[in-house]
Amino acid sequence: MSTFGKLFRVTTYGESHCASVGAIIDGCPPGLELSAQDIQTQLSRRRPGQSDLTTPRNEKDLVHLQSGLEMGVTLGTPIALLVKNEDQRPHDYTETDLYPRPSHADYTYLEKYGIKASSGGGRSSARETIGRVAAGAIAEKYLKIAYGIEIVAFVSSVGKIHLPSTLAPPSLTPINADENDDEVQDALSKEFVDLLSNITRDEVDKLTTRCPHPETSEKMTQRIIRAKNAQDSIGGTVTCVIRNVPAGLGEPVFDKFEAELAHAMLSIPATKAFEIGSGFRGTEVPGSKHNDAFVSDDSGRLRTTTNWSGGIQGGITNGEHIYFRIGFKSPATISQAQQTAQYDGTPGTLAARGRHDPCVVPRAVPIVEAMAAIVVMDQLLAQNARKTAASLLPPITTLPPTMVIPKKK
Amino acid sequence: MSTFGKLFRVTTYGESHCASVGAIIDGCPPGLELSAQDIQTQLSRRRPGQSDLTTPRNEKDLVHLQSGLEMGVTLGTPIALLVKNEDQRPHDYTETDLYPRPSHADYTYLEKYGIKASSGGGRSSARETIGRVAAGAIAEKYLKIAYGIEIVAFVSSVGKIHLPSTLAPPSLTPINADENDDEVQDALSKEFVDLLSNITRDEVDKLTTRCPHPETSEKMTQRIIRAKNAQDSIGGTVTCVIRNVPAGLGEPVFDKFEAELAHAMLSIPATKAFEIGSGFRGTEVPGSKHNDAFVSDDSGRLRTTTNWSGGIQGGITNGEHIYFRIGFKSPATISQAQQTAQYDGTPGTLAARGRHDPCVVPRAVPIVEAMAAIVVMDQLLAQNARKTAASLLPPITTLPPTMVIPKKK
Amino acid sequence: MSTFGKLFRVTTYGESHCASVGAIIDGCPPGLELSAQDIQTQLSRRRPGQSDLTTPRNEKDLVHLQSGLEMGVTLGTPIALLVKNEDQRPHDYTETDLYPRPSHADYTYLEKYGIKASSGGGRSSARETIGRVAAGAIAEKYLKIAYGIEIVAFVSSVGKIHLPSTLAPPSLTPINADENDDEVQDALSKEFVDLLSNITRDEVDKLTTRCPHPETSEKMTQRIIRAKNAQDSIGGTVTCVIRNVPAGLGEPVFDKFEAELAHAMLSIPATKAFEIGSGFRGTEVPGSKHNDAFVSDDSGRLRTTTNWSGGIQGGITNGEHIYFRIGFKSPATISQAQQTAQYDGTPGTLAARGRHDPCVVPRAVPIVEAMAAIVVMDQLLAQNARKTAASLLPPITTLPPTMVIPKKK
Amino acid sequence: MSTFGKLFRVTTYGESHCASVGAIIDGCPPGLELSAQDIQTQLSRRRPGQSDLTTPRNEKDLVHLQSGLEMGVTLGTPIALLVKNEDQRPHDYTETDLYPRPSHADYTYLEKYGIKASSGGGRSSARETIGRVAAGAIAEKYLKIAYGIEIVAFVSSVGKIHLPSTLAPPSLTPINADENDDEVQDALSKEFVDLLSNITRDEVDKLTTRCPHPETSEKMTQRIIRAKNAQDSIGGTVTCVIRNVPAGLGEPVFDKFEAELAHAMLSIPATKAFEIGSGFRGTEVPGSKHNDAFVSDDSGRLRTTTNWSGGIQGGITNGEHIYFRIGFKSPATISQAQQTAQYDGTPGTLAARGRHDPCVVPRAVPIVEAMAAIVVMDQLLAQNARKTAASLLPPITTLPPTMVIPKKK
Repeated sequence: MSTFGKLFRVTTYGESHCASVGAIIDGCPPGLELSAQDIQTQLSRRRPGQSDLTTPRNEKDLVHLQSGLEMGVTLGTPIALLVKNEDQRPHDYTETDLYPRPSHADYTYLEKYGIKASSGGGRSSARETIGRVAAGAIAEKYLKIAYGIEIVAFVSSVGKIHLPSTLAPPSLTPINADENDDEVQDALSKEFVDLLSNITRDEVDKLTTRCPHPETSEKMTQRIIRAKNAQDSIGGTVTCVIRNVPAGLGEPVFDKFEAELAHAMLSIPATKAFEIGSGFRGTEVPGSKHNDAFVSDDSGRLRTTTNWSGGIQGGITNGEHIYFRIGFKSPATISQAQQTAQYDGTPGTLAARGRHDPCVVPRAVPIVEAMAAIVVMDQLLAQNARKTAASLLPPITTLPPTMVIPKKK
Repeated sequence: MSTFGKLFRVTTYGESHCASVGAIIDGCPPGLELSAQDIQTQLSRRRPGQSDLTTPRNEKDLVHLQSGLEMGVTLGTPIALLVKNEDQRPHDYTETDLYPRPSHADYTYLEKYGIKASSGGGRSSARETIGRVAAGAIAEKYLKIAYGIEIVAFVSSVGKIHLPSTLAPPSLTPINADENDDEVQDALSKEFVDLLSNITRDEVDKLTTRCPHPETSEKMTQRIIRAKNAQDSIGGTVTCVIRNVPAGLGEPVFDKFEAELAHAMLSIPATKAFEIGSGFRGTEVPGSKHNDAFVSDDSGRLRTTTNWSGGIQGGITNGEHIYFRIGFKSPATISQAQQTAQYDGTPGTLAARGRHDPCVVPRAVPIVEAMAAIVVMDQLLAQNARKTAASLLPPITTLPPTMVIPKKK
Repeated sequence: MSTFGKLFRVTTYGESHCASVGAIIDGCPPGLELSAQDIQTQLSRRRPGQSDLTTPRNEKDLVHLQSGLEMGVTLGTPIALLVKNEDQRPHDYTETDLYPRPSHADYTYLEKYGIKASSGGGRSSARETIGRVAAGAIAEKYLKIAYGIEIVAFVSSVGKIHLPSTLAPPSLTPINADENDDEVQDALSKEFVDLLSNITRDEVDKLTTRCPHPETSEKMTQRIIRAKNAQDSIGGTVTCVIRNVPAGLGEPVFDKFEAELAHAMLSIPATKAFEIGSGFRGTEVPGSKHNDAFVSDDSGRLRTTTNWSGGIQGGITNGEHIYFRIGFKSPATISQAQQTAQYDGTPGTLAARGRHDPCVVPRAVPIVEAMAAIVVMDQLLAQNARKTAASLLPPITTLPPTMVIPKKK
Repeated sequence: MSTFGKLFRVTTYGESHCASVGAIIDGCPPGLELSAQDIQTQLSRRRPGQSDLTTPRNEKDLVHLQSGLEMGVTLGTPIALLVKNEDQRPHDYTETDLYPRPSHADYTYLEKYGIKASSGGGRSSARETIGRVAAGAIAEKYLKIAYGIEIVAFVSSVGKIHLPSTLAPPSLTPINADENDDEVQDALSKEFVDLLSNITRDEVDKLTTRCPHPETSEKMTQRIIRAKNAQDSIGGTVTCVIRNVPAGLGEPVFDKFEAELAHAMLSIPATKAFEIGSGFRGTEVPGSKHNDAFVSDDSGRLRTTTNWSGGIQGGITNGEHIYFRIGFKSPATISQAQQTAQYDGTPGTLAARGRHDPCVVPRAVPIVEAMAAIVVMDQLLAQNARKTAASLLPPITTLPPTMVIPKKK
């Protein structure tokens, strides 16, 4: 349904052509300074019309805060916000509308609900993600202030154009490679680790593709333009890093950190794949090379020398960078003629009208960041509840040293 | 936490060395014939000691049903079940226990809870999945009877040993392939489609690897034995197909079918990656080739000519085969000596005692099937609630034809 | 938090002085004809300024539908709606604001959140119930069409002014009555049963008190005016009946029908008490007289000859009228001077400014109806999910006759 | 369904004649010393056969802990526990079984599930409450250690036998009393306040009725024996006090403290009524007398001079004693012959076999305490999550004094 999160809960509403889209965010900590601008920044990064790589509709997407704040400070009560839809009138239907768009949600929404919006994507439209991005911006504001948490996503591939392998997340060896060759990379490349450690949103936004490597970005741009010119579309991947998350987040056994993250990411339109840390690649690297050995840092805290785990072990954060990659399929709506069938089974040719994003990944970046922020926030609140409760109990002195946290050397 | 599902709810309990592990399954439809044997079959497929590829511990894992049934029929009340742990005594701790196992959950459990089980995996042990497998067996029994739904998982890779590409799920082109080459495969291979359509558990179980291709299976066996001999471990992937799921399941926008599935799969120990349908590969195939065109079948029902979507569009099932792949990392527990640090930061060498699975994917097969069954069951109940409610409303005659299900031609 | 319901979910937002109050209603069945007017009718019954018994603020409370509908028909997607607050500016604070109002939520909100709205009730304001009433109106529309369900609440007492005992719900014998006298009423009075069976909202609204007995209503009016003139306040009770609910609703063991109903009712501001069916009175009537004997009706369906149970047995509806009573305390905000203390502990005298409802029960009537409708709707969807699932199983022929529904004679 | 709580979650299972009854308790803080005896104490207070006032079945009800603990300390993982049913064989059915017991759950369970247990109460049996009592005992152990919270319930009435009015919770004026008489009690009686402040479980258990006033207890005993001898039954009320709960618990607007409490209490078998603080009585006392004025205590903390509110204002605890009363109807199962109908509609006479509690309130005492403990625990965890989160934000210096907690004088 339309609510995500248990303690930090986001409920979104809205279709592509109704009066407005928006969300109620429940469970935001009280006492947080928050302005519409904090939210608008991310909404504007999500907005169409930012470059010639995205759909030319130029919606302003101004956020209107309705509740939950006074004098720019959160009250702890639900924060409602909305963004008006500029085009609220469903268009007159034409023959085009008699076709469920192949690989779009038209057919399945009708099968599910027995009724569907007459125009556009209805509820399956990407406009729904406005509520998510706004909620994520609120979570991020808190996480940054309270924990210094930083969340940065970027485009890691468009079609077959990938970041150079030194900068890319671990990736599956192609099928039919030398199957018995264990001479695998035994750590993430230093360049990739540096990228995870240092990348900022400003850098990501320097290029319209949101790929932080200019040469690759240029190739991606050409690839997207090629798709656009062919009235076609192309997919891509987004990689995201979350820095400075404290150890201990994640709620085994079903609400493990990566399980919640996968849930959140696969709920974004057009996503088909998710991997965390070494991901599919981690299936090929023998345990002896894949295991992240521990070492004590200057403060006596255990750190790992490598981070194939992507910051998560046993479903719980270990304090290292959390990184993951999401696959977005090529958009379903294309202007090219397609041989398909109408709702009633009549075969025919569909040529979708209107203008569409030939590639969604640049605009997906703030959506990925938002969903990541919401997951971190919700898991932090759950762990805080437990940790605060446990801290009120007297220490137990009779347990063997293998059961309790030892004194640091 | 330890509950999964909203209407069909599974709550598991148990650590590796406590009295028993088990689950409460709430929301099972009343009137279902169910025996311990229905559950035992899947538990035995999960059990260690089935072949020399898995850990030699031979636990019997007999299920004891506690409630929710009378005369072999479900009452609609919670079904509790348990499997006794044979080794309930935590062992005396040794120096080994002073080390958090690299890439295992030891460190993070301690960071999260401030206390951890003295022996074995505790709650992070794969024994926890017994409750899941049992719950899944119950869901499956219902799904098979009521809908003819079939769920079959199999091992699709071990290390770099993959099923032949004609039999494998779509897979990402290697980085640095010819980036502008659009001459992509424009449909799933016929062999893979046949495999999805016909594979049975009996066939899967013929080979101890649970890979249904004898030649590949043999290579996998060798690969696992190599890992075992090297006191090392190796990962792999499991592919799963769900057949005969009705169209309309999935609860947008946050509880889309694939989002719930990803959540369920990434909650299984050692998983790092998930892809559905074309997955990461779908990011490379242009929309014009990736789109699944519609065609009317003999009964007038819309079907797709290809199935890159993996049976899901817009987060909702479309009636085609649902298929997905999960990546399991190489097991963290290995007997090989590892340079690492103790909990207190002291550097040293850890050589884990005991016997461990060098590769978990053969045993992961029934766990994947179980979590898939639980997701389908939960989503079916949600859709039934909606559909039954909507069916009681009078038809609305004033809506334009683009908003309602048309008469079939 | 601010969400109620599992399958039919209402999330409300808004404080007394923010931009708007409203709700998102998720899970409404698709295909329901719905207009703003359907909602406005109940909002207007809730609105202040309807008579001289309520606060003279005359807010228009016009509902603005945002999403979830097209051409006046629900899409099955979340329905968002809002009502603008006319007075959005917090007033300049005065000495009055230094006092937490006795028995109001000022102190506890501050303790809970560490911050509170500067003016009025903030989130604890009765304006929050606008979202509930709107959601309830939607639920009711469905319930009426699909099941003929009718929900009618009325004022059953104001202060000590009660409906005549023949018309009142069962009521506790006063303490110190003849303790061993078992000569109790052995059924609900015929007049009360008739009232439950026939009362309509039109009748309830004929009198401004919303008490359906003119003589009692007149006394109540005088009682309220007396409170008003004394700058004081008075409480009362609301009784509600739900007719035509099918047997089988309620989700034991924790989400029994009456448990959900009690939860819903006790979440309404100013409520302190709830009883269903015979309520506290049922503690005094011996089982032999309290038990509702069964009898077969013309259609062969089992009915009860009496209805002390209030339509619920074992937490599940039995098809009889569901009736319950809720106690609303006397409003906390009064203009009369009160000896109390400021937030910082300084003792002093508080005389609240502004105009306040001397008695809330007449306006509480639509709120009670709304929460009742939401509970019925949510429970219906849950039972539909189960029942539809069970109906797909083959009948089991081997069960003894005491375990299954027999053929009717 | 069978799970209660969000962060401290109890899932129960079991019918009257299955293998065992029990529960999984998820979310217990780690590091709590806990023994089977901590739980057994309350189970034994709930057990039948404690006196000649209850059913003579003498079940031992020994608890078996399954998981979640090691060396007597909680691990933070789910705690599973079970109590074996001694009589697991359903009896041979007789003519009696052809009758749904009037006012029992037989008929509604069959309507709901289409199948029901062949013997006894099945899932509606009070044996289900064993899981609740065990869970409550765990919550209590934590609450006592961490906060000094004390929860004590006692029997306040049996039939018409009530505690003397000075010791009883506020009670509704009888209908037809002098309606305009405002000369109401303007505070709780000192004796009642003393009782709430000082009553202990030891005192409650001194008398088999669990009524702490010997004279009243003696009358209650006679009343119960009279019911027993008449093969009849009688109801009663239980009053409960929770002491030392910190201010700030309760989650408006739907999960207010009293709403959760009402939900919890009305989920206990045989309950029909709930009131908190002044309850129904609070509807009669004018605001000017009902309002609990504030005063600063020695530590500068605000306290209330009276406590009509029952420790809750605006749905949030204010730090005063929380007290509430629950009505339990007369048990439905009686041995006396009843004119009623069989499942198939055939009229006839039912005389229930076996031995039954003529009055359940003495045994209900630990069940009420348990559900109260579970609610407090769950709400504490939620508030801890919020409070810890808010504490990490920098103070905001620009807010007016009416919005923030002032310095104490």
